[in-house]
Amino acid sequence: MKLLIGNKCYSSWSLRAWLLMRAKGIPFTEHLVPLDEPGFKEAVFAAAPGSGGTVPTLVDGAIAIWETLAIAEYLHETHPEAGIWPRDPAARAHARAISSEMHAGFTALRGACPMNLGKRFGTRDRGPGVARDAARIADLWRQARERFGRAGQGPFLYGAFSAADAMYAPVVTRLDTYGIAVDPAAQDYMQAVLALPAYREWLAAALRESWIVDQDEVDEPALADLRQP
Amino acid sequence: MKLLIGNKCYSSWSLRAWLLMRAKGIPFTEHLVPLDEPGFKEAVFAAAPGSGGTVPTLVDGAIAIWETLAIAEYLHETHPEAGIWPRDPAARAHARAISSEMHAGFTALRGACPMNLGKRFGTRDRGPGVARDAARIADLWRQARERFGRAGQGPFLYGAFSAADAMYAPVVTRLDTYGIAVDPAAQDYMQAVLALPAYREWLAAALRESWIVDQDEVDEPALADLRQP
Repeated sequence: MKLLIGNKCYSSWSLRAWLLMRAKGIPFTEHLVPLDEPGFKEAVFAAAPGSGGTVPTLVDGAIAIWETLAIAEYLHETHPEAGIWPRDPAARAHARAISSEMHAGFTALRGACPMNLGKRFGTRDRGPGVARDAARIADLWRQARERFGRAGQGPFLYGAFSAADAMYAPVVTRLDTYGIAVDPAAQDYMQAVLALPAYREWLAAALRESWIVDQDEVDEPALADLRQP
Repeated sequence: MKLLIGNKCYSSWSLRAWLLMRAKGIPFTEHLVPLDEPGFKEAVFAAAPGSGGTVPTLVDGAIAIWETLAIAEYLHETHPEAGIWPRDPAARAHARAISSEMHAGFTALRGACPMNLGKRFGTRDRGPGVARDAARIADLWRQARERFGRAGQGPFLYGAFSAADAMYAPVVTRLDTYGIAVDPAAQDYMQAVLALPAYREWLAAALRESWIVDQDEVDEPALADLRQP
């Protein structure tokens, strides 16, 4: 299988699919298409005919899947032993619901705080929408861990790492790099995601990138610029 | 199983889940909570503890699923014989991708043309975003039917009616009631959805409703008001 992704510093959707496959040990070839460069869509279509011309896109033979939730379901079907979703049906239903809520939701947070792994920003009031989104996210994480977490299987939302954790990974980085306050339980969970070897691998590559995507650079001074291209 | 829904005239997300279950013959109890009335969220939480306080929510014993794609996956697992998704793996991957694109996409069309089954509007220019969304939707339908349609199994996107058709049903009604031009193949598909007995049942109930949801009423004169509460 081949996974088309965008820049690792900025492409939050690419991170989700890549992290899921890497953390679950599913082999794939990575194909990076720089975001916002001329010919981006053409490059994606050339590598993934029949796709949506977006990243991530998973290509498996003649099958091109250009939506992250659909990629997760495809991996769930083709790698039933990988634990893409939690094994317990109630936990799995919950995991899919919070993943779907992530897919279309939290627009205030996502708009105000674009994923940018290269910079850290100071804590500041980013408006009621961002605070509401952060509170809802922390509440979903709490629900998942209290109701379905299996501490013996791992520190993630449903114990072992699953597609739900992958869906929320870019939010973890946003809460972290923009200094948005969450409760201690949410912070513990964030640490588990940020310490994941697959995430560390992605981050290291992101910090070596030199591309700047202007629309994902917020208009405020960074506390630190971490990139060393 | 119990399905919580909103007003049938306006609740596009409720239509998706309801139509999928009804068209597939999956028994359920319907529980309608009027949108935008005081106590809406409390009423949903009372009927569906652990949900997101939104409609649709599917309740199956202690399991509450508050996202439509997650409901579809739950039905797919609990009713494997129902054909919730197409049986062919490539068609299924495509169906999930276009359903996911629907879930978070087409915001120009959805913003300018809220689902409103009670009124028909005249054709007019609704801006480039709406035209772009309509063209992309028609293109996805064409792709699905050309690549994966099974005419012998039905006139829907992948032959037999599936969750992808349910996901696009509210868009079918929007293109219809707002008089948005699409190509003849797309029109044929729309007719198939609008003629579905399960849809006719939903529509008949919608036209008997008396609730008015102001935010879903656009600021233009209707050609016809179809409701007879």
